[in-house]
Amino acid sequence: MDNFQAYVDAHRERFIAELQDFCRQPSIAAQKVGMREMATKVLTRLQQLGAAARVIEVAGGAPVVYGEIGDGARTLIIYDHYDVQPPEPLELWDSPPFAAAIREGKLFARGVADNKGNLMCRLHAVEAYLATMGALPLKIKFVVEGEEEIGSVHLSQFVAENRALIAGADGCLWEAGYKDVNERPVLTCGVKGIVYVELHAHGAARDLHSGSAAIVGNPAWRLVWALATLKDADDRILIDDFNSHVRAPTDAEMDALKAIPFDEEKVKAEYGIRAFVNNLTGLALLKKLLYEPTCTICGLYAGYIGEGSKTVLPNHAFAKIDFRLVPNLSPNLVVELLKKHLARRGFDDIEVKLTETGEEVARSPLDAPIVRAAIDAARAVYSKEPVIYPTMAGSGPMYPLCQQLGIPAVSAGCGWHGSRGHAPNENIRLADYFEGLRFIRELIDRFAQS
Amino acid sequence: MDNFQAYVDAHRERFIAELQDFCRQPSIAAQKVGMREMATKVLTRLQQLGAAARVIEVAGGAPVVYGEIGDGARTLIIYDHYDVQPPEPLELWDSPPFAAAIREGKLFARGVADNKGNLMCRLHAVEAYLATMGALPLKIKFVVEGEEEIGSVHLSQFVAENRALIAGADGCLWEAGYKDVNERPVLTCGVKGIVYVELHAHGAARDLHSGSAAIVGNPAWRLVWALATLKDADDRILIDDFNSHVRAPTDAEMDALKAIPFDEEKVKAEYGIRAFVNNLTGLALLKKLLYEPTCTICGLYAGYIGEGSKTVLPNHAFAKIDFRLVPNLSPNLVVELLKKHLARRGFDDIEVKLTETGEEVARSPLDAPIVRAAIDAARAVYSKEPVIYPTMAGSGPMYPLCQQLGIPAVSAGCGWHGSRGHAPNENIRLADYFEGLRFIRELIDRFAQS
Repeated sequence: MDNFQAYVDAHRERFIAELQDFCRQPSIAAQKVGMREMATKVLTRLQQLGAAARVIEVAGGAPVVYGEIGDGARTLIIYDHYDVQPPEPLELWDSPPFAAAIREGKLFARGVADNKGNLMCRLHAVEAYLATMGALPLKIKFVVEGEEEIGSVHLSQFVAENRALIAGADGCLWEAGYKDVNERPVLTCGVKGIVYVELHAHGAARDLHSGSAAIVGNPAWRLVWALATLKDADDRILIDDFNSHVRAPTDAEMDALKAIPFDEEKVKAEYGIRAFVNNLTGLALLKKLLYEPTCTICGLYAGYIGEGSKTVLPNHAFAKIDFRLVPNLSPNLVVELLKKHLARRGFDDIEVKLTETGEEVARSPLDAPIVRAAIDAARAVYSKEPVIYPTMAGSGPMYPLCQQLGIPAVSAGCGWHGSRGHAPNENIRLADYFEGLRFIRELIDRFAQS
Repeated sequence: MDNFQAYVDAHRERFIAELQDFCRQPSIAAQKVGMREMATKVLTRLQQLGAAARVIEVAGGAPVVYGEIGDGARTLIIYDHYDVQPPEPLELWDSPPFAAAIREGKLFARGVADNKGNLMCRLHAVEAYLATMGALPLKIKFVVEGEEEIGSVHLSQFVAENRALIAGADGCLWEAGYKDVNERPVLTCGVKGIVYVELHAHGAARDLHSGSAAIVGNPAWRLVWALATLKDADDRILIDDFNSHVRAPTDAEMDALKAIPFDEEKVKAEYGIRAFVNNLTGLALLKKLLYEPTCTICGLYAGYIGEGSKTVLPNHAFAKIDFRLVPNLSPNLVVELLKKHLARRGFDDIEVKLTETGEEVARSPLDAPIVRAAIDAARAVYSKEPVIYPTMAGSGPMYPLCQQLGIPAVSAGCGWHGSRGHAPNENIRLADYFEGLRFIRELIDRFAQS
């Protein structure tokens, strides 16, 4: 066993305790809960590591925690976020979302997979590297933001105001990553864009007895009718002019899909579904997952949703919808098309509320040095061959932080296929966490030499 | 001033306190909260009145409180209910729903208009009658059930098991009534039927990150698509074969509408709406209100409905829907048509859950003795001419309790057009309450002599 691994083994219990401490601090961006406290925790941990760290304020947003450490020819940005998704619905958690309970080798907590586990894993890897291998062979710049889960609303502004800290870096290690259903480590080189809107319908001045519904308009029905014009039962997005903006994938992009081993049966079993949308399989399935946009109802509400029956005519209904975007859809374009679409069909009464600014699509070249270093590091550490995704189905601020400055990025991390990101019982396996430490060590060495 | 009125005036404060006491006891049938406690309160009050009262159990349901008092050639059933609607949304109440606060001559409480105010008003009227006018000139049978707000699930069973208590009565004073926007007392001689269902759609085994929505089905969309097949934007119910069962109103039924002065502008102002559904006015508006069925989304839920954005693919969505029924639609028929309609369109995956057994339509002859007595009593008490509705837009168990036994019923009570039944800030005006006492006294005398 080498010194790095011996150090990790010797500090295993402390590492776990420190990860639990991160997870026990709620930091829910959507609800503005615990953000400042969590930023302070991250700052303190960076300072303990010996990094030149500080909290950088962004007007109107959660602050960014920034830290520099090491020196060398190469500069690596490590991007993470200290915010988490809301923990609701609470009743579906087997242990409280901020208890950070450990069961059967897994740590359960809101945010542990997305993304406090990766953040702490990278901090611990650097600590072990410094303690056992000497000075870092490159410069690492930690950029830890607090608004990833609400669309990194102020990250563009942060980059604009702190461009000198970011520009010129050679590569970026992105926030997330996981092992697929066949335990192969997944490396990802891009993100979909996203825009998140709320549609609100309003009715009478107040809720009424539902007997009145014969003659008084029902906003819940208005909302249903409006929504039904957005997407059909074949999952086709029907918004006027929407699909004409979707650029078809190039041959090279399609080729990248062919290299992905996607175990459909295991994924279906993991999700508990009998078939994928439209019974898709093979390349068509991967194409839809990675190269096609989505329009997803994330939330729906009207009237009485408690136990039993209440015969009420609601006076308000809303839907929360996210669109995942591919080239050449942009957040602004989608909102504009959506509003025009609704107005053209007489749904002017439906209020379209933008809950965040949205994020652009980003994809890095698959042969960039940071991507190659990550592939090599994964091969050195993991027993299974890594899988390269040209983009993830999810989103993130890769465009403002990396792509617009020409910095290639790759995403890798210590989640697994059962991590349940954004859902109850989110978790990571501790074995993956400690394997992840070795991956970071290998990545540092290989990227420094690239 | 007569003795009756003098007694009422002398006991005014106690009457109000007793009404507040009724209102301060939550008794939410849908949530099974406080039902037994409220039944005991009603029993005690009936016994204080001198009635032969008892609690009659109904297997599986909330008990019925039954009390007999008085004697004479005529027997009058007084039907009320001690349960109330759920108080949610709590944040829209200006005072807590079970505080029974009094402001500006109004008593605010969940259930005070529907129907604890009427129940207590009738009890107080009988008390004042006995104290000042001697023995009652007829037999009154109080039937106070505890499941009206959830569709009187067990009242048919109660009647079947206690038929001798009900059969042979000459008329029934129904639970509710109010003054319209021009302060005219409204008397109602029928109810719409109702059936209340939940539609449930299910997706993956758990909520997923919304990135997966590209390939994993979304139950919220399934629900929206299914709902959109049930009713169109012109408020036409589209369920296969549904409308063919609706019997058109007869000429006599239409004539009854012509006698109703319905102040559309004031009603619109009261509800805070600019127009009625489909811009209807006049006779067409009243026809839709009273003689046409409804299909109303009372509640809608999926995924994340809290503050801000959560990018989640929900694994469950549901709608709560009530149908108000006219001849010849029955609850069972509607559920059967709905299931067939959904199955025919490939929505077999949508689970149709019946939350209550439903209620049949009922209408009493407008020239029945109890109706004529109510009209005469209203003319004697109120300064404005009463308005006769052949049916209400709402529902109630008039079929099992009255119509199936040939007992005519009329509904009258102490609500007003701003009573906000089933909605936040439900209230009655105390002046209406005390006027209501005189109405009951007059009704007793007139019906006894009819």
